[in-house]
Amino acid sequence: MPRFFKQPFFAWFSPSPSRLQRRQLRQAIAHIIGDQPSNLDVYQLAVRHTSAAKETKIKGFRESNERLEYLGDAVLGMVIAEYLFKKYPFKDEGFLTEIRSRIVNRESLNGISRKIGLDHLIEYDGQRGRLMPARTSMYGDALEALVGAVYLDKGFNFTRRFILKNLLSHYDLDSIISNNTNFKSRLIEWAQREGKELRFEIISENGSSQYREFIAQLLVNDEPFATGSGYSKKKAEQSAAEKAFEKLELQ
Amino acid sequence: MPRFFKQPFFAWFSPSPSRLQRRQLRQAIAHIIGDQPSNLDVYQLAVRHTSAAKETKIKGFRESNERLEYLGDAVLGMVIAEYLFKKYPFKDEGFLTEIRSRIVNRESLNGISRKIGLDHLIEYDGQRGRLMPARTSMYGDALEALVGAVYLDKGFNFTRRFILKNLLSHYDLDSIISNNTNFKSRLIEWAQREGKELRFEIISENGSSQYREFIAQLLVNDEPFATGSGYSKKKAEQSAAEKAFEKLELQ
Repeated sequence: MPRFFKQPFFAWFSPSPSRLQRRQLRQAIAHIIGDQPSNLDVYQLAVRHTSAAKETKIKGFRESNERLEYLGDAVLGMVIAEYLFKKYPFKDEGFLTEIRSRIVNRESLNGISRKIGLDHLIEYDGQRGRLMPARTSMYGDALEALVGAVYLDKGFNFTRRFILKNLLSHYDLDSIISNNTNFKSRLIEWAQREGKELRFEIISENGSSQYREFIAQLLVNDEPFATGSGYSKKKAEQSAAEKAFEKLELQ
Repeated sequence: MPRFFKQPFFAWFSPSPSRLQRRQLRQAIAHIIGDQPSNLDVYQLAVRHTSAAKETKIKGFRESNERLEYLGDAVLGMVIAEYLFKKYPFKDEGFLTEIRSRIVNRESLNGISRKIGLDHLIEYDGQRGRLMPARTSMYGDALEALVGAVYLDKGFNFTRRFILKNLLSHYDLDSIISNNTNFKSRLIEWAQREGKELRFEIISENGSSQYREFIAQLLVNDEPFATGSGYSKKKAEQSAAEKAFEKLELQ
């Protein structure tokens, strides 16, 4: 459970934030980013989940943090890319891509979002949707949106420092790198624990002899559960196993 | 045909660039980026295709433009993300994501790379591989690597301006946006032109009733040709048709 559950999630803003609520948000954001926000509105938008989207002057266009999430995702990806590029000058781009994707995966971002206390700022409508916060990506999405907001408010250099100092510092890079990514073997362990039966099937092959692509399907207790593709049967199975991992929200 | 074909593609550097070759590269880069390069080496690396990768001091680590491509891809993606975010304040993130992917797709980047004259700077080993330049992503890859090099050499603000002024100016955004993306219907037209027979099959369904995923397979003359996935049968077929488009290098 989030730490600050005493306060309702959307008390800050709904229906329209009071002066007190804005002051509280300002303080919380200042605490998170280490500086006074210049444009509070953009942070207010960053913590507005789509279930609490607000009508705009443009008919049919309801605004939530999803656009900021798109922007923040790109900023975060770039800053992490540069960081890894410089930190590992003798690692190839496959390594850099893989480590970055582990850093920015939804699970990790959800965790960081909670660590910096962003989770209790999120405005969402708990009645309207079928949202179960612990199982959604709401926190990580809001974190990306926050990065987008910081970028718009403070510019690139500030945001870069914020990401490296205030977000990346929560990661244990060594353990991320040494993390076992053999999803297939880990999934088999999971199945044994849970008493499930697993089976992989190659359901399709495409392409020429030079560029062949396989599609693997994972069946759990004979039910299709996930598929993955790859340029070898083994990679396709790994990919299916990884997708199953995401669906099962294993770690 | 590239404009500067009189000079062989890899004469600049092989085996090791002469002072004259470096001066020529410096001039060419200055012309492309609109400023004198401060660190020429990083641009030299940006135009070095993997087929011409060089040994480094680190045993087993051969260096080419692939790491710079990883960095440049991230920088380019971010700058385009911000540009679209600001240009289309009332479009949702789905639109922004789609338009960005059309801007940075390999086909587009290959074209821009030729337009700015980067293609004739690329150092690659034409003997070694089975490369057919017109059908590879070599040009677009080098363009991303160039963006990475500019970022390392000149910093964020310069690179942002370079992307917006020197690269994005080659695009016709309106036509990108209005572009027909119904790949399935366009593929059917192609098949009629070429006298091929097309068939789509749903070869797999995964997931629960809430999150169902379909895998569609496209068969050309009864041969599996491409697969795609999506949350509806129609989307899975569209995705398979789009992959076929890429393979066929249609536009």
